[in-house]
Parts: sequence; structure tokens; C-alpha cells
Amino acid sequence: MGFFGGLFEFKGYRHPVLVSSVDGVGTKLKVASVLAKHNTIGIDLVNHCVNDILAGGAEPLFFLDYIAMGKLVPEQVAAIAQGLAQACREVGCALIGGETAEMPGLYTGEDYDLVGFIIGVVEKEKIIMGNTVTVGDTLIGLPSSGLHTNGYSLVRKIFGETKSALDAYYPDLGRTLGEELLEPHRGYYHQLKPLLPFIKGMAHITGGGLIDNVPRVLPQGLAAKFRSQAWTIPPIFPLIQQRGNVDQNEMYRVFNMGIGMVIICSPQNASQLTRQLPEAKVIGEVVKQAGEARVIIE
Amino acid sequence: MGFFGGLFEFKGYRHPVLVSSVDGVGTKLKVASVLAKHNTIGIDLVNHCVNDILAGGAEPLFFLDYIAMGKLVPEQVAAIAQGLAQACREVGCALIGGETAEMPGLYTGEDYDLVGFIIGVVEKEKIIMGNTVTVGDTLIGLPSSGLHTNGYSLVRKIFGETKSALDAYYPDLGRTLGEELLEPHRGYYHQLKPLLPFIKGMAHITGGGLIDNVPRVLPQGLAAKFRSQAWTIPPIFPLIQQRGNVDQNEMYRVFNMGIGMVIICSPQNASQLTRQLPEAKVIGEVVKQAGEARVIIE
Repeated sequence: MGFFGGLFEFKGYRHPVLVSSVDGVGTKLKVASVLAKHNTIGIDLVNHCVNDILAGGAEPLFFLDYIAMGKLVPEQVAAIAQGLAQACREVGCALIGGETAEMPGLYTGEDYDLVGFIIGVVEKEKIIMGNTVTVGDTLIGLPSSGLHTNGYSLVRKIFGETKSALDAYYPDLGRTLGEELLEPHRGYYHQLKPLLPFIKGMAHITGGGLIDNVPRVLPQGLAAKFRSQAWTIPPIFPLIQQRGNVDQNEMYRVFNMGIGMVIICSPQNASQLTRQLPEAKVIGEVVKQAGEARVIIE
Repeated sequence: MGFFGGLFEFKGYRHPVLVSSVDGVGTKLKVASVLAKHNTIGIDLVNHCVNDILAGGAEPLFFLDYIAMGKLVPEQVAAIAQGLAQACREVGCALIGGETAEMPGLYTGEDYDLVGFIIGVVEKEKIIMGNTVTVGDTLIGLPSSGLHTNGYSLVRKIFGETKSALDAYYPDLGRTLGEELLEPHRGYYHQLKPLLPFIKGMAHITGGGLIDNVPRVLPQGLAAKFRSQAWTIPPIFPLIQQRGNVDQNEMYRVFNMGIGMVIICSPQNASQLTRQLPEAKVIGEVVKQAGEARVIIE
């Protein structure tokens, strides 16, 4: 791009802190390519980015995208952009620019990569970083809609990535594998925004699962103890585990296992939060760290 | 990334406008891969991004990167990051985060993609958009350091992309083709920043060359007339043209032809600017648009 991608006039904040994130959607792209369904992958990307900065208490301001292909296919770019635009509109985020790159030799066939950059803002005194989290705080889980955007390389290895593999119907899922895998990454902005003042810490559960994402918002010396019986693990996860003979620990490290966002709050605020979030469940609590593990899943 | 990439406290501006851009470095990456030299490609990316927003009068605030590979090679990521960090430091831009994605099946062998995202700021009344540009204004060209980051797919087609093709020495260049092609994209921030008040419009010459990039800063009804005799076209361009038997018009559309940035100013300010920019040259002027062409190269 020879000129700048976007202008954004910035006003109305007292001590604004800009919060930014860059993300891709991993090899979920390969599933979209094989099924030639490109109008939801943009939703995945935007929701992933919005959730990332929401975890810091920030609201989205604007979004830029990067699409790279071996040879540009205008209809494909249009379908991707449609998903991006729809998801941005839903959270009031300006889609102010992007770059579409044609890179022959780097991307082959129908392959492409898709990257999103988001900028949000939060008042300095309202940043959510988990620093007030303490022993006895409650862990609340918000359900994911499926794999979101993580674990696709492992899934492709287990099930293969042919169209016939993706078109296979699974009674457990009630739909085809491909439909399940392309389910858009869920966004939590609207439901969580009014509740931010009651939240001490938040972890967006992406690559690394509960095990790697939750410790980032725990102060030193604290651990998160989850009761896996407290929520229903969606059928896609046991299906993957059985087919691939995947170790339980690896499952929790690669996949979100049905929890897309973890909220940490004081026990006093827990019932208020779960009342306002009908799908949310209390799934654990913050404990003193005993051994090496900062996340315990029982 | 499960947590937000970066925080940036934002203060000291009266009517701040955020300016952003997203860019890649095109298939210059393939040259870096073949030569296994990864410590300058990050400089290319940062300078490209900084120049893009500088063209709007903005100074860089922060930068995020995205690196995707089939399989992560830590030394390669470290070399790329070193270039990013160096170039960010040179312009006082905070490198506040990034995403490193492992995407088997999408990227093969040594291939990777690298994307940069920059946010800058400009006071609203100091945005440079070219809207005051008028007939008789002067076009000043700043020299590029070579191809910068555009035209690499064509060059790879013409010369091939084997190591031996890139290691060939060319007397005209005084170095190997690979050395010439990996010359970092030049940044114009330091030299232009103090001169911004004297500049009416600026075009960063990237993909599309003078022909596509300059019209973006010209008001309706105006055209840019360049005298190609007014600057020295570096030897890499005639070399490409001869080897590939490339049409002259295509050369000016694919490559920067030795001009990395075009400044538009009033004739009164032209001598002041060229005095402060020893390498800059007056290379044309703004004229009334006669036919369809908005860029005329004589």
C-alpha cells in the first residue's frame, strides 16, 4: 500500500490507553479453502481479535486486514471481506483498511493467509490485568462455539483434509465435520462490555488452551483450579480425542475444550455475573500455588 | 495470541488523528529465504510501514508484526525480529507485540510470510493529504535504495530464483544480484519530519510505481508531469528491463525506478526543501490534466 490505510480521529477519553493485537486464524483457513467457503473466516478473525483486547478491558476502535494469495481471486477476497465487514459492524469497529497481496510461489493453489490487526482503547484506570486477583476468587467460563481458531493442524492430521473427510456426517455432532470445524469463533464483546467493572481478570482461551492462557492473568503464587465436571464439553472434543488417541493433557493444551473465555471475579460478584450471563458457569476458583502447575484441571 | 499484544498510553496531543497501515514485503521474502539472510527483511517491513504513514504527515507510535511459517525455526524468527527491532528503534517506534504462527501445510520448506502493522499519529490540522496541491507545484523526488519491496515477482520470473542466479555478480551493479535485491527499503522519516510544514502532498512509491501512487495525492483535474532525465535511474532497473524485455510503461508501473518518495510543494518552497535534502531532486511539476493520464513521464 502506497498510502496510509486509515485515519481515525481520536477523542473523548481522559487517559486513553491504546490496546492492540495481531492475529491469524491458523489452519482453519485450509478447511475453508477445501470447502470453498470463505464468508465466515473473516468473522473468525475479527472476533478473535476483539476478544483478545476485550480481555484487557478494551473496546475496539478499528481493524485492518492482510490477505495474501498466490493469485488473487476477486470473488474469494470479496467473500472474506464480507465476513470481516459483518463482524466489525456487529461490534461497532471501523474496518478502515487493509492490504491484499499477490505472492506467487509463496502461496499455492487455493491457499491464502489472512491476518487481522485491531486497535482498541481503554481508560487507564479501567485496564483489566488481573493484578487484584486473589485466593478464593471465582473462575467463570463462557462457552465456546467449537474449536474457535485453534487446534486445526492437529485435527487435519487426525481426520485428513480432503473434501470427503470434511463432508462426512457425524451423528455425535449432528452435522458434517466441515460444518463443525467452520463454526465461527464466538465474540464476547456485547455480553461482557456492561459487566467489565465487576471483572478482575479475563483470559481469551486460544492456542495453549486453559493451561497456557489463564496463568497470564494470575498474580505470582496463585493457581487456577478448574472442575471439568462443571461444564459440558462439546462432542467435537471427545470425537477428536478418540479418533486421534490424544492424551488428555494435550487436549487441554491444544483446544479450548468448550470454554472460550475465562472470567475471574470476587466470589461476591460471581452470582451477579452468572445471572447476567445465562450461559456462563462457575467452573473453578483461584487457589494458592502448591507445586509447579499454575493450572489444575480436575 | 490469547492476550492483547500491546498497551500504549496516549497523551500530549490536542486533536490526535490515528493513522495506520498494514503491509507485507511481497516476494522479497523468497529472495531472503533462498539466500538464508533474514536480518534485513524486518528493516524493509518497518521502513515500508513508516513511510506509508509519513506520507500522511504522521509520526510512528507503535508497530506489531505477524510471522507465519510451516514450522518455526527459532533462529530465523530471531533474525527477522532483530531487523524489526533495529528499524523500530531508529524511528522511535515501539515494537509492542506480534504473533508468530506455525501453519504446516500452508507454508512449505523455508517459506514464511511477514506482515507489519503500524499506528502513528498526526495533529488533525497537520494531516498531509494533497488537497492544497495546485497547478505549477513542484514535484521533488527522493532516491530509493533499489527495488524497495516491489516488483520481486517479476524479477524472480526474469532471473529465476535459484541460489546460483542470485549469487551471480553483475559488473553494472558492482555486486551480486542477491545483494542488490536484498538492499533494505529506505526510510524517509528522519529527513522529512522537520520539513513536513513545507510539504503539500507526499506519495510513497510502492507497488504501482509513480503511475499509481502519485494520483492519490492529486486533487481532481490535476496531473503529475515527470522528467525522467531529471534523475539517475539506478542500474538495476535497466538491467531488469533488458533481461526481461520489459515494456517501458510496465517498468514505471511495477518499479519505483529510483524514486522512493515524491514530495509536492509550492515552487517557493522547492529550493528550501532541496537545500535541506541534498539527495533530493526536482523531477517534475503539477499540471492541468489534459487527457486521461494523471501521470505523464517524459
